[in-house]
Amino acid sequence: MIPVATALDYGSVVIFALTGALAASRSQLDLAGFVFVAALTAVGGGTVRDVLLGRMPVFWVQRPEYMVLIAIAAVAVFFTAHLLESRYRVLLWLDACALSVAVPAGVAVTLATGHPAIVVLIMGVVTGTVGGLMRDVLCNEVPLTLKQGELYLSCAFAGGAMALLAGWAGFGLPTALLACAGVTFALRAGSILWG
Amino acid sequence: MIPVATALDYGSVVIFALTGALAASRSQLDLAGFVFVAALTAVGGGTVRDVLLGRMPVFWVQRPEYMVLIAIAAVAVFFTAHLLESRYRVLLWLDACALSVAVPAGVAVTLATGHPAIVVLIMGVVTGTVGGLMRDVLCNEVPLTLKQGELYLSCAFAGGAMALLAGWAGFGLPTALLACAGVTFALRAGSILWG
Amino acid sequence: MIPVATALDYGSVVIFALTGALAASRSQLDLAGFVFVAALTAVGGGTVRDVLLGRMPVFWVQRPEYMVLIAIAAVAVFFTAHLLESRYRVLLWLDACALSVAVPAGVAVTLATGHPAIVVLIMGVVTGTVGGLMRDVLCNEVPLTLKQGELYLSCAFAGGAMALLAGWAGFGLPTALLACAGVTFALRAGSILWG
Repeated sequence: MIPVATALDYGSVVIFALTGALAASRSQLDLAGFVFVAALTAVGGGTVRDVLLGRMPVFWVQRPEYMVLIAIAAVAVFFTAHLLESRYRVLLWLDACALSVAVPAGVAVTLATGHPAIVVLIMGVVTGTVGGLMRDVLCNEVPLTLKQGELYLSCAFAGGAMALLAGWAGFGLPTALLACAGVTFALRAGSILWG
Repeated sequence: MIPVATALDYGSVVIFALTGALAASRSQLDLAGFVFVAALTAVGGGTVRDVLLGRMPVFWVQRPEYMVLIAIAAVAVFFTAHLLESRYRVLLWLDACALSVAVPAGVAVTLATGHPAIVVLIMGVVTGTVGGLMRDVLCNEVPLTLKQGELYLSCAFAGGAMALLAGWAGFGLPTALLACAGVTFALRAGSILWG
Repeated sequence: MIPVATALDYGSVVIFALTGALAASRSQLDLAGFVFVAALTAVGGGTVRDVLLGRMPVFWVQRPEYMVLIAIAAVAVFFTAHLLESRYRVLLWLDACALSVAVPAGVAVTLATGHPAIVVLIMGVVTGTVGGLMRDVLCNEVPLTLKQGELYLSCAFAGGAMALLAGWAGFGLPTALLACAGVTFALRAGSILWG
């Protein structure tokens, strides 16, 4: 992977881990539960993507530092979550950030495998949304991904399409990925603020 | 795959996509939600089968036209579902049709891999039932697969067993697959009508 | 696999199958439902482990006798569960036994692949907990894995860590696996009795 894609990848894992730990906090789990939900949320989307594409063993098995980062994030939230005024509000915005870096990360990984554009788009959406979906199902919350008025999936689709359009328009990969992240975040933020 | 198996495969994907979109409609999702649930329902069973068997990348990654068909089905339901008198009734019967073509499709794919009969039977059931199970869990409906009195899994098992019996009795593959589809549908229809 | 690991593997599959069938009984499913939930619970954790590690086809596809054992266990529970005074109590203790053999089984399989210690630990936890998690989600019970006060995940983590420590301390694999099983069961039993 090129540097921009690597940075997006680590970013999305750590931020999704924070959202998973916050959801664990809302469900009043113990420390092991924080780590478990954080890990599932953080690597869930990328893991499903890798399995669908046949890239095995999946990415985090080959790079155990991911799990170390996730455990640190979960422990940090475990000891600080009670200081937050509204854990849900923080979760919502962190989730928007994580989505906005996970979609381009998924696009970058899939582009490198040479699959057709529709598969690239789908894998961007899968990488961005499946971890959060698992988090919400496990913690018994209404999944953000499917909640009415959130337009969650639409933001992910639009971001992925932006990356493909930027590529077709002749922009380089880093520019296309940043455009993807920007569009995803802008739409998602708009939906949170005025949705 | 031989023509009969291919026809069963496309048929089950499109019909399951329609049921997924109808479930999305019952959950009042937006257009992206229709496409997402339709896709998960349509390819869920075959995807899990392919992963278990190690056939990767999974079938629809190699043939992106599946996703195009699914998107068309989802959009069509999005604009017409409100015209239906009882979306659940239509969903129930379409689901019975989809099950009856997905079980033989799963049997055909697994037979071609040379695995033993019990694995063929299991993969027929998995291909037929897992997509609908994901649809119901995601849309927060009681899963048809496990609902009391539906005999859903029994129909899938009986259909798969019929295919194996027809094969052992010396019938050709197309006949065995059609017998499988017939038995599955007859039992499922009986269960819906008199269950 | 060496004999101890093989014994652990078969043991965890059969005991988890019994817990799955008991959960099916609590949900009043039919016989096919018993077999389905028993199978999912019994092989769910090991299947996810194999997929993550890229060991495909997954373990039970290559050894169909697993499914025969699971079907026998499910049928046996189907005809006897009504004789039990408290199915939940039996389920709870069988689940503790299954966890205690599944964690070392997962550790043994992953050790043999040469992955780093953190991956071995994670795969022990995944093998031990994912099948039961699927069982509970499917049967609409609060997942034991995440239930407050159960310390379920902590027991699995501690058992896996014990296996690694015993290995580093120079003990042979059979000793390390037995220590892992012992620690997992002791902690889990303590949590059930005094948790």
